[in-house]
Amino acid sequence: MTTPTIFAKEALLADLASGLSEKALLSGADQLETYRFDMASFSPAGVPVAVVRAASRDDVVHALRTASKHGIPVVPQGAMSGLSGAGNAIDGCLVLSVRDMNRILEISVDDQVAVVEPGVLNKELSHAVAEQGLFYPPDPGSWEISTIGGNVATNAGGMCCVKYGVTGDFVRGLELVLADGTVLETGRRTAKGVAGFDLTSLVVGSEGCLGVITKVILGLKPAPRPSLTMAATFPDSASGLAAVTAIMASGVTPSLMEFLDPISVAAVNALQDMGFDDDCALILAQSDSPEALEDVARMAKIATANGAIDVAESADDQEAAMLLQSRRSLHAALEVLGGNFTDDVAVPRVRMLDLLAGIEEIAERNDIKVATAGHAGDGNMHPTVIFDRADEAAKARAAVAFEEIMLLGLELGGTITGEHGVGILKREGLRRELSATSLRLQEEIKHSFDPQGILNPGKQIG
Amino acid sequence: MTTPTIFAKEALLADLASGLSEKALLSGADQLETYRFDMASFSPAGVPVAVVRAASRDDVVHALRTASKHGIPVVPQGAMSGLSGAGNAIDGCLVLSVRDMNRILEISVDDQVAVVEPGVLNKELSHAVAEQGLFYPPDPGSWEISTIGGNVATNAGGMCCVKYGVTGDFVRGLELVLADGTVLETGRRTAKGVAGFDLTSLVVGSEGCLGVITKVILGLKPAPRPSLTMAATFPDSASGLAAVTAIMASGVTPSLMEFLDPISVAAVNALQDMGFDDDCALILAQSDSPEALEDVARMAKIATANGAIDVAESADDQEAAMLLQSRRSLHAALEVLGGNFTDDVAVPRVRMLDLLAGIEEIAERNDIKVATAGHAGDGNMHPTVIFDRADEAAKARAAVAFEEIMLLGLELGGTITGEHGVGILKREGLRRELSATSLRLQEEIKHSFDPQGILNPGKQIG
Repeated sequence: MTTPTIFAKEALLADLASGLSEKALLSGADQLETYRFDMASFSPAGVPVAVVRAASRDDVVHALRTASKHGIPVVPQGAMSGLSGAGNAIDGCLVLSVRDMNRILEISVDDQVAVVEPGVLNKELSHAVAEQGLFYPPDPGSWEISTIGGNVATNAGGMCCVKYGVTGDFVRGLELVLADGTVLETGRRTAKGVAGFDLTSLVVGSEGCLGVITKVILGLKPAPRPSLTMAATFPDSASGLAAVTAIMASGVTPSLMEFLDPISVAAVNALQDMGFDDDCALILAQSDSPEALEDVARMAKIATANGAIDVAESADDQEAAMLLQSRRSLHAALEVLGGNFTDDVAVPRVRMLDLLAGIEEIAERNDIKVATAGHAGDGNMHPTVIFDRADEAAKARAAVAFEEIMLLGLELGGTITGEHGVGILKREGLRRELSATSLRLQEEIKHSFDPQGILNPGKQIG
Repeated sequence: MTTPTIFAKEALLADLASGLSEKALLSGADQLETYRFDMASFSPAGVPVAVVRAASRDDVVHALRTASKHGIPVVPQGAMSGLSGAGNAIDGCLVLSVRDMNRILEISVDDQVAVVEPGVLNKELSHAVAEQGLFYPPDPGSWEISTIGGNVATNAGGMCCVKYGVTGDFVRGLELVLADGTVLETGRRTAKGVAGFDLTSLVVGSEGCLGVITKVILGLKPAPRPSLTMAATFPDSASGLAAVTAIMASGVTPSLMEFLDPISVAAVNALQDMGFDDDCALILAQSDSPEALEDVARMAKIATANGAIDVAESADDQEAAMLLQSRRSLHAALEVLGGNFTDDVAVPRVRMLDLLAGIEEIAERNDIKVATAGHAGDGNMHPTVIFDRADEAAKARAAVAFEEIMLLGLELGGTITGEHGVGILKREGLRRELSATSLRLQEEIKHSFDPQGILNPGKQIG
């Protein structure tokens, strides 16, 4: 009795093909398989019925109109580098990739503004504006492989946030296509503007549940000075985090403030010996201010006062790059240790010590290993629960620990997700964090943008 | 046949009185008159049936529940210092003032966070955090008399925005009461967070159309260095604005960048002689960076290269304060010249010269005087149309010029309002700026928050 489905599928493919750019439509089984998973591969993923690789806004409009007509779900995708499953396919969905819409439309030095299509890589934009003496700060861990559209859809963070803020702080306006194919422009190109409700911020971080972003207007900053770097090791996590809190409260504004606990340091060392003791916690800090030299000296002094074992200051770009590499390689280093579930809690900075203590208790009780590292200057930590991939029981305990850490973040006055997003992975957590009233309003907003509910159902608020 | 109305009024007053704090309810005719107008006194205002001066969130909840039950409109008010009529009373409405909810609930140095009630004055908060070595940047012209709640409701800007951003950039979370009395918390205390749609940003700038704000969580910054100041005069507006554009594109990040055209300078001089030539344009710039000395020298050099007549640099706090006073006194100085309608257009910085040229044409064609000054570093200008209060024909021409300038801002790729808000004054303009789709979505969002439409009807999107 699958005939009607086959008819429906063929009708859908024919309708899609009738209005798309050449080569935009993919429907071969091998091709479909490629578009199933973002990087939260342990979240469930279905098999799409077709993939549209939009070459233009017209393709996006046509794809959404067609999906609306056929009533099938649409999963918007960029680089598929998300960490929460927001980009995972749903059975029978249309995957709508904007990865090929990758033109930088404009970089204005005088206005300090960039206008880009969603498929531009963060790296491409960052380099292009740097060539003009400008700076696009948001730098998620995935910056070399993730797209601006995806960064906007998840409100991506990164290491720079501690000084410069998150992606949303740089988004001035958007063009998006709603579920029914209507084009909506939000915001504006100007630095300021208060005409009407802020729909731009509403779409930022909405994980493809409100529309498909087809253009982004971004504010830029003047290029910063070269950064100076400080690295300090500590006998334990508690003293390292105490140093972070003291530095942040001292009035210094670091441009980077990262923390790695001893398990993380050991993992990084195992991947490539960075010369740190295995059994220490590490903080990495930078300043790109005109008084970076004084900032770094002040941070070093506070680190020492908080029990640092070794404190190194570096004006050497290569050495600094190597130190940062140790932080950036952490994800890969932890992969070597086993399967992992990465939390993304953010807590008030003064509760980081409580967070660490709670994580230790959770790890012990669940007989599982947790490596904790992250953007400590913002209180945004990534406790990673590590398990033996071959051990189903361990995986189950890891999943429990993952949930418990998320809820611990909430208990400490924080959030289940600082920057990775909700996707599929934190749908339950979202319903713990938000009140019934907040959920009702969000569901109604979703309905206004997407009455049929075809945009990314089962993800975030969708 | 007014008996039913009298009964309805008495029933409303009795219901209000039954659940409010002592002295919260005002209904004397003299008292009601006091709550009719914000500072856009040329916008229409009705007479409220009663005023609630809420002493607590419970009062706000009771007032809104009661208004919902009786189906009467509610106009939220703070300091009544708004410039667009958003706080103007409506005939038969309940004015709900949160001016007395004025406690600073917390200032955390370690978290760089303040939690305040909405009636706290911007000035009070700014001073209180400065005492702790912290900095709350948003500084609307009204900062000495306006409330944080009002600043949030209008997403107020100010002179600092050019470096630090607007009010919304510092709002992390809100508590508000919806039209039916339900309490909603949005956002969070942490620096980062992406759990669900960004309802906080939706409420910021919504001018009391979505709910009544009862608590605000604000991010703070470390105290900046003392500012150094540069003042430069120019033979005309065009050269002054060219200098602003060149400075902003040079990579300097000033902490203030203001412009006054010759009419504005003459008006300020007439109020109190500042020693400027009457027939010149003026730019005032500051830097609070560690390299402020170099910044000011660079800005002075660019001003000279763009035809400045006189360039003064000042490290003297008193002198700087006097210079800024000249800018701050502009509103009063223009009041002396006659009645005035103040526009609030923001355009891309590179279009400021076109804006000035267009304003000159509009002034000439309408035979009316326009003084143009504003936050030129952001492209946010306040062209003020001046007319003889006794001359109705001049007032009518002024109103036409006001509208034309607003639309000119739109034509130049800008917005009808950079920071003053929509209120009553720019309702028509709002409908010119936003697309039908954007308006539909905003109306639906409004309906989700306030199904009866009792919150500030006839203002902004309400």
